[in-house]
Amino acid sequence: MIVTVTLNPALDLTYQVDALVPHGTHRVTTVAERPGGKGLNVATVLHALGEPVLVTGLLGGPTGDRVTGLLAGVGVPAAFVAIAGETRRTVAVADRDDATGFWEPGPRVTAGEWAAFTDHFGGLLAGASVVALSGSLPPGVPIDGYATLIRLAAAAGVPTVLDTSGEALRHGLTAGPDLAKPNAAELSALLEAPRPALAATRSAPRPVSAETREAPWPVPAGTGDAPWPVPAETRDAAGVAAAGREVADATVALGHGARAVVVSHGPLGLLALTGQGAWRGVPPERLAGNPTGAGDACVAALARGLRDRTPWPHLLADAIALSAAAVAAPLAGRIDEDTYRRLLPAVRVSAA
Amino acid sequence: MIVTVTLNPALDLTYQVDALVPHGTHRVTTVAERPGGKGLNVATVLHALGEPVLVTGLLGGPTGDRVTGLLAGVGVPAAFVAIAGETRRTVAVADRDDATGFWEPGPRVTAGEWAAFTDHFGGLLAGASVVALSGSLPPGVPIDGYATLIRLAAAAGVPTVLDTSGEALRHGLTAGPDLAKPNAAELSALLEAPRPALAATRSAPRPVSAETREAPWPVPAGTGDAPWPVPAETRDAAGVAAAGREVADATVALGHGARAVVVSHGPLGLLALTGQGAWRGVPPERLAGNPTGAGDACVAALARGLRDRTPWPHLLADAIALSAAAVAAPLAGRIDEDTYRRLLPAVRVSAA
Repeated sequence: MIVTVTLNPALDLTYQVDALVPHGTHRVTTVAERPGGKGLNVATVLHALGEPVLVTGLLGGPTGDRVTGLLAGVGVPAAFVAIAGETRRTVAVADRDDATGFWEPGPRVTAGEWAAFTDHFGGLLAGASVVALSGSLPPGVPIDGYATLIRLAAAAGVPTVLDTSGEALRHGLTAGPDLAKPNAAELSALLEAPRPALAATRSAPRPVSAETREAPWPVPAGTGDAPWPVPAETRDAAGVAAAGREVADATVALGHGARAVVVSHGPLGLLALTGQGAWRGVPPERLAGNPTGAGDACVAALARGLRDRTPWPHLLADAIALSAAAVAAPLAGRIDEDTYRRLLPAVRVSAA
Repeated sequence: MIVTVTLNPALDLTYQVDALVPHGTHRVTTVAERPGGKGLNVATVLHALGEPVLVTGLLGGPTGDRVTGLLAGVGVPAAFVAIAGETRRTVAVADRDDATGFWEPGPRVTAGEWAAFTDHFGGLLAGASVVALSGSLPPGVPIDGYATLIRLAAAAGVPTVLDTSGEALRHGLTAGPDLAKPNAAELSALLEAPRPALAATRSAPRPVSAETREAPWPVPAGTGDAPWPVPAETRDAAGVAAAGREVADATVALGHGARAVVVSHGPLGLLALTGQGAWRGVPPERLAGNPTGAGDACVAALARGLRDRTPWPHLLADAIALSAAAVAAPLAGRIDEDTYRRLLPAVRVSAA
């Protein structure tokens, strides 16, 4: 099974109002509640695709109970560790034009609760084919929490996908996840921020040994001259400059410890930098819809591909089609399966 | 004990943010949760004053459980009827300037649940000295729900205070509450709205009999020439016109069935129209603060005065001082006791 970790899940509330009027009072016409958190979205997408999945993480209080109940309602298996603090809510107020978001702070996690989680996580690894680690860390979880989990998974021979940002990403990379999936903004922020914390905790550069170069998937034949057309975006000067910057950024991130990096760039697609080569994939069309959750659908595809050792070009195409299918679905964590099937054969992937 | 009825309570959430940016994403810096609903505020104020009180109404789901837990935390005795629907939340987003409110719709109440509540309410009347009925009706409760409760209370000899608006107020008045407390806007809206529903359900004008004229409090001597100065607001032309309109409005409300009407007008004070005369009370100073809950503090004072048969001028002064003490407290349902003690002797009440 694919295990998805969500250390800072939420109860996501969506309020529909006619129009947002600052300092006004609004009668909410409809309230939607769903289990929130990036790893929960990843799992919900995988579950919809028929993949065996288990969600874990930290949940507390009545709001945590509600998240558990909602997950059970959609049939996603869950094994969370209970904490004394209360799971947070997020409120998205949707009006005719757009949404306005309010994110509660996460609950404080005690050292004992974190220790209990790492024990619990270790126990889940025996049945895990891949682990996806997604989202922010709640207060109290050590900033290198993802590094701890990645090392536990590596020791158990379970590959990992890391999708987080900021210091949690920086520290997580030092443990050598098999795959990191920052978006372009997260990657730029990581590289532009002052990094005293990294200097203090950065691991030695990963040795270029047979072991670290050995990808968990076979190197596809002929990836140097892929049959996919080079997308127009990479041909013009600005596109080349942006792509060059992305490659450089991703290379630095690789140098921090990830075995492979997939950088997502919204409707511009994905860039993969791996030990077997670099590829760029572009969606065949722009879709209108809700981009929230597209990155989580991408991680779902990447986790499945990591498990199945899918060749990179195919994996990138799958991740792009699944991300687009998430944009086409109105709720994060859902996909429009027709869009997925329609776009999958049309995605363009080329050597970068 | 004073029983307060809240048929549509809420879990009130207050989110602090730096500044509200429409269509932006906000990290909430602090989250405050409190039991919400006008009758709960009335009870919390009475409890703070040391008065025996019991809150009742309809609560459902985990959000209802949370409201129960928060009430227990502040020590307010509660006896709610459980419903299958989920109690609503309200979210107030406070920034540096003001607050923006989002009110979820109330849960749908079934006919069986409403019948169970009226039974439960009937059972509480044996121990009740006064009943305060506050706030909106959730979907499913008959629009004349307050009229039903007022008649049950009257049959048990328990006086009632009604504080609601719109159709719930219009229908409630027909059952002859001992006291109605609309604010000026609610009263105007009631009188300006088309009223086919009233025509259909309006009871015959209350007979001017000895029984209906017999107030539950003694008529104070010398109320025709009260020692309180006539406030300046009523002396100028606009003030006189506004006061005339308020008196006219309140008279109509009286004609609809209430034995007495107290109209609240924010910082301008209170107008009482009763079988014993009319009085106007004005706060001695304007207070900066949070006006939410001031009306509920006013009802708390009126309910206590109804129980104690406090003479009207004293009762009006008490209600004004307690309302001001609520404005001076940052949270609805709380009062600043120093403000209450300081203002009480300074409130001006005069015959209107």
